Amino acid sequence: MPEFNAQRSYAILGAGALGGYYGSRLHHAGFDVRFLFHRDFETARRDGLRVDSDEAGDLSIPADALRAYGDVADLPPADVAVVCLKTTSNEALPELLPRAVKPDGVVVVLQNGLGVEARAGEIVGHDRVLGGLCFLCANKVGPAHVHHLCYGKIKLGEHTADDRAAGITDRLRAVAGDFEAAGLPVTAVDDLRLARWQKLAWNIPFNGLSVVLDALTDGLMADPDARAMVELLIRDVQRSAAAEGRTLDATFIANMLADTERMTPYRTSMKLDHEAGRPMEVEAIVGAPLRAARAARAAGHTPPHLQWLYHHLTHLDRHPRRPPSPGTGGRAPGMPPAR
Amino acid sequence: MPEFNAQRSYAILGAGALGGYYGSRLHHAGFDVRFLFHRDFETARRDGLRVDSDEAGDLSIPADALRAYGDVADLPPADVAVVCLKTTSNEALPELLPRAVKPDGVVVVLQNGLGVEARAGEIVGHDRVLGGLCFLCANKVGPAHVHHLCYGKIKLGEHTADDRAAGITDRLRAVAGDFEAAGLPVTAVDDLRLARWQKLAWNIPFNGLSVVLDALTDGLMADPDARAMVELLIRDVQRSAAAEGRTLDATFIANMLADTERMTPYRTSMKLDHEAGRPMEVEAIVGAPLRAARAARAAGHTPPHLQWLYHHLTHLDRHPRRPPSPGTGGRAPGMPPAR
Repeated sequence: MPEFNAQRSYAILGAGALGGYYGSRLHHAGFDVRFLFHRDFETARRDGLRVDSDEAGDLSIPADALRAYGDVADLPPADVAVVCLKTTSNEALPELLPRAVKPDGVVVVLQNGLGVEARAGEIVGHDRVLGGLCFLCANKVGPAHVHHLCYGKIKLGEHTADDRAAGITDRLRAVAGDFEAAGLPVTAVDDLRLARWQKLAWNIPFNGLSVVLDALTDGLMADPDARAMVELLIRDVQRSAAAEGRTLDATFIANMLADTERMTPYRTSMKLDHEAGRPMEVEAIVGAPLRAARAARAAGHTPPHLQWLYHHLTHLDRHPRRPPSPGTGGRAPGMPPAR
Repeated sequence: MPEFNAQRSYAILGAGALGGYYGSRLHHAGFDVRFLFHRDFETARRDGLRVDSDEAGDLSIPADALRAYGDVADLPPADVAVVCLKTTSNEALPELLPRAVKPDGVVVVLQNGLGVEARAGEIVGHDRVLGGLCFLCANKVGPAHVHHLCYGKIKLGEHTADDRAAGITDRLRAVAGDFEAAGLPVTAVDDLRLARWQKLAWNIPFNGLSVVLDALTDGLMADPDARAMVELLIRDVQRSAAAEGRTLDATFIANMLADTERMTPYRTSMKLDHEAGRPMEVEAIVGAPLRAARAARAAGHTPPHLQWLYHHLTHLDRHPRRPPSPGTGGRAPGMPPAR
């Protein structure tokens, strides 16, 4: 793969907020970008893809310039297939990936959680997968309509079947170069697994507790008990990462918390999903790290707070919280009373 | 103290559901019972105490026969002062107890949680305190108006300053005899602390999770993840009790869970308190066992799920859950989006 190649073709699998924003950036940089839509295909074909960026202005792609697809069977195989689906739609991957990527192409998995590259690796081969962690504020505000607020940085690394650090390869530099050419800052990382654990040190406590405690980031940081729960989870993540030989040191954690304290109050993706009645990414963000921690600890030790959070979120996924019926100050008629 | 003495006087401190029911039973058995009311004093003085029992029929006490007090300063000291307040009102005890009980009388603490007798013991002396665990379905349905649905059994034991088993004393038999004479089944226990831990093995998971997961007992038993959380908490309680030399064996736990499965779906007292905007008994039911577990474990081990539950409930006590505003399917305007 040449380091930068404006002829390189990209397939965006899942043209939602993340895929719509990154794909439109690549398109405007001159790459051949094909977008696989799901529900929004008809809108996109008719009206194009609308992307309003607070940072970069109008990044829309008019209908006559947009390569929109509604069915993977019609999608020409690309040099790079970018997985922008939520992990809760990963059951589609076995059908999508073999068609979306050329035999010598690569898959870039831009998903939350741990072990998400392995799923792609099982399908196309572990030697053909990169993983990326996105730091992006973008939102789908309507059909084929994305609003980008800020950020967009990607940490990109090589996946390996056994999750060891693979260093910086030429093809990693090549994909990073394409994204950089599209105005998207990329940091190439030599240890993707470490980068994933680092992001989980934020995603597990803040995504998880935003749902469990029905709070934004500022509420979690301000309340002493919520903050204690954040720190209990972070400690579990640190120990789980350490069991795989990845260090999340005290300075890293302190900086992360200080950054969170400075952030505009933030509604996490898991909370947005839960409020909208969509399934949450519990398995990728909490379940997979929990299973990894169990597998890595010889003593069979389970990180207790991660385990608890996993049960709690799985329960909530099955029993979405409903508003209390008004006026029930006490017990419902016919219900047994207090113990 | 003679084993049964119909001349014995009782002071009911806190004439709510529990105090109203037990007090009216003692009154109708011929004991001299004085009731200390708080908010309901005027109603009680005017209309008497109304107690409707599904088991025993009308146990009301008409106004002319009711010894109702609104101020502890007016209350004549009794042979037995029965603490029927919620633990969240325990700041009143230093004023109440020295006036409510004769110098040679005893205090019976009928409260939830762990260490609740110690609070009374600090005030009147640890050698003058009994503790009781109530298995009662009763509810205050209006001012000075109690509805008793079922049960009423009490486990009664001697308190000691160092929480060792004190055996069955004569005065324990005497108070138990009075309650039995009033139609209230009593089991005298030789190890009050063990009885408290046994009850906590139910109260901690079911009271706690009924609030955290917004569920009744049947919902907690039926959902596999809620059930897993129940069992994680029970394991923490077992280990905490074991650190004090108290065994809650597998058969005890299995029977308790089987009983809970057979129960009519049950709304716990903590859930009722939380729904009504009252403070929950977090300190007595969760905080005190957590602190006891920490104190008893030489290695400084903290029971992780008990600790988590304590933080969660303390947070909820401070931030009562509000119904989501209608129609907010996604994020609020102006809020940053998903991470």
